[in-house]
Amino acid sequence: MILTFTDFGREGPYLGEMAAVLRRLAPEVPAVDLMADAPAFRPDLAAYLLVALVERSVMPGDVLLGVVDPGVGGSRAPVALLADGSWLVGPDNGLFEQVRRRAAQAREFRIAWRPERLSATFHGRDLFAPVAARLARGERHDLVPDALTRFPEQPDDLAAIVQLDRYGNAMTGLRAACLPPTAVLEAGGTSIAHARAFVEAPAGQPFWYVNSSGLIEIALAGGSAAAHLGLAPGTPVACPPA
Amino acid sequence: MILTFTDFGREGPYLGEMAAVLRRLAPEVPAVDLMADAPAFRPDLAAYLLVALVERSVMPGDVLLGVVDPGVGGSRAPVALLADGSWLVGPDNGLFEQVRRRAAQAREFRIAWRPERLSATFHGRDLFAPVAARLARGERHDLVPDALTRFPEQPDDLAAIVQLDRYGNAMTGLRAACLPPTAVLEAGGTSIAHARAFVEAPAGQPFWYVNSSGLIEIALAGGSAAAHLGLAPGTPVACPPA
Amino acid sequence: MILTFTDFGREGPYLGEMAAVLRRLAPEVPAVDLMADAPAFRPDLAAYLLVALVERSVMPGDVLLGVVDPGVGGSRAPVALLADGSWLVGPDNGLFEQVRRRAAQAREFRIAWRPERLSATFHGRDLFAPVAARLARGERHDLVPDALTRFPEQPDDLAAIVQLDRYGNAMTGLRAACLPPTAVLEAGGTSIAHARAFVEAPAGQPFWYVNSSGLIEIALAGGSAAAHLGLAPGTPVACPPA
Repeated sequence: MILTFTDFGREGPYLGEMAAVLRRLAPEVPAVDLMADAPAFRPDLAAYLLVALVERSVMPGDVLLGVVDPGVGGSRAPVALLADGSWLVGPDNGLFEQVRRRAAQAREFRIAWRPERLSATFHGRDLFAPVAARLARGERHDLVPDALTRFPEQPDDLAAIVQLDRYGNAMTGLRAACLPPTAVLEAGGTSIAHARAFVEAPAGQPFWYVNSSGLIEIALAGGSAAAHLGLAPGTPVACPPA
Repeated sequence: MILTFTDFGREGPYLGEMAAVLRRLAPEVPAVDLMADAPAFRPDLAAYLLVALVERSVMPGDVLLGVVDPGVGGSRAPVALLADGSWLVGPDNGLFEQVRRRAAQAREFRIAWRPERLSATFHGRDLFAPVAARLARGERHDLVPDALTRFPEQPDDLAAIVQLDRYGNAMTGLRAACLPPTAVLEAGGTSIAHARAFVEAPAGQPFWYVNSSGLIEIALAGGSAAAHLGLAPGTPVACPPA
Repeated sequence: MILTFTDFGREGPYLGEMAAVLRRLAPEVPAVDLMADAPAFRPDLAAYLLVALVERSVMPGDVLLGVVDPGVGGSRAPVALLADGSWLVGPDNGLFEQVRRRAAQAREFRIAWRPERLSATFHGRDLFAPVAARLARGERHDLVPDALTRFPEQPDDLAAIVQLDRYGNAMTGLRAACLPPTAVLEAGGTSIAHARAFVEAPAGQPFWYVNSSGLIEIALAGGSAAAHLGLAPGTPVACPPA
């Protein structure tokens, strides 16, 4: 299976053009658009969402095509990472840092292959998708063993908002294990207690819960936690002292 | 074929994660995302849209995976309905009431199966999608014959707005047979006459027509009927006395 | 491969219902949603985007199902165009004018086939999708050789905005060859110079570049060119005298 993770949005032809390349070059491999609204231009935030999704939905033999690539057209390298049997293909900008760091076994490659026609702004379609399609078919040419760039400034868990959903729920980069259910978070100047699910949350008050990706998320039953608390991607969250 | 009908929206990883489960467990079965913006948290409204879509686009042997599930994590049961040869899988909250009621032959089941990992908030991915994928492959384990909850408060046709589209057209829960073309509807304090299609509608005036799902819809050529008339999901529509 | 190009948006059931028809009638043919937010109701603008996408992503043997169809339910004919080995299926309203004009070999047909159930407003699902699915399988019944309507008022390149993306980048109907990199465009009363890519653009200033479809596009690094310059689909762009 090929799974795509991008910040393209679903507007315009971008996702469709990339999907067409995948179906053209690997028609027998199922392709799933896992997410198209990853934090825009922010591989440093998207990394936390990506690793959570990879742990749940990407299996050995799969290829994750990850494109959050503000430096497209510049000098960042195209890379491939084989992490515990799953391939990740995309830019070398920190997007895969958390996956690499948590992998029991990781092999790292620079992509030396270049297409005949390479646009300056759409390497997802022109470069990464062909490589991903070939890897999904078991072909692996023009991958040069080479370490990915390290991003030591990324913590293992990120005490910040990484993503808002359509209802105004705000996902953080913190895993469930970071906080006991008795902990009180602070975000947007407000103290936030835990609830197990929306049906158990107090009316009119924001709460935090462990979302379906295993990340701490701040929500407000029947309302927008993001609007209520003034949260946006990057807004810090304060954890209680351990 | 597996068809999904949800209120997830296309933001975030939800639709993608559910699609990945379907492709993983039933790779040979085509899966189509029929609709992802069903009336949010409103199975009582979504039921009318769902039944119209099922009548047009779901065939015997298909599986409709329907998730409009505000009670996820609470006590509502997961159910499966075999309606005239088509399976429907989802929560027991009235979403399938119209399909069940109109079916010539209906067999009703409670889903007893539970996955190893069941999140509190995403039964679409963890519970309903695996059951749907197995049904699509002809496997039917852990379905216990059991009547779905009845929702007698749902009328056979709903004189209210159930859905707005991107252009501000407002779909009602009324089937075409409810109204002769000479009838005048009332919505948002305005009287609304019939036109057969947009190209035949009077300029600047809202009109009603029978939409492509066979439901009465209120529109305004070149404008937003919803904005013009102040319509939202749930807004009542007044039919003329028969 | 079947590729769809529409102005349906991804809201509502429209794209899903059409996809279901394609999978039902041609389950063995990959289907890709190339774009669903083509300029709404504007085949005259969409024609320039479509031809650029066809040149990159549509191959001989493919079928492009193109539905930007404000005249649905009126008298415009349904047509099919065989352009250099690729089929295009849709309304005879100028949407295919640029593809036809640039094709080395074009064969033109009127679709005489009608479905048993033809809604007044959704020919994409009821008429065009079944024809596209059959063409993709090599079946070609009820196509009558007949010239498509000519739209001589469409220039070969359009000096206007044809599409905005989610970031406020504004695509024009001008191909790269129209302008040397030294040229200065004018749009929204502002002079706009060239940059090769976002990473090379001057901060805070709109620039133009050749986008990944080969069209001239106006952008603003880290901001919305559309908001900054007041651009919308149809806004004229002034090219320098050649």
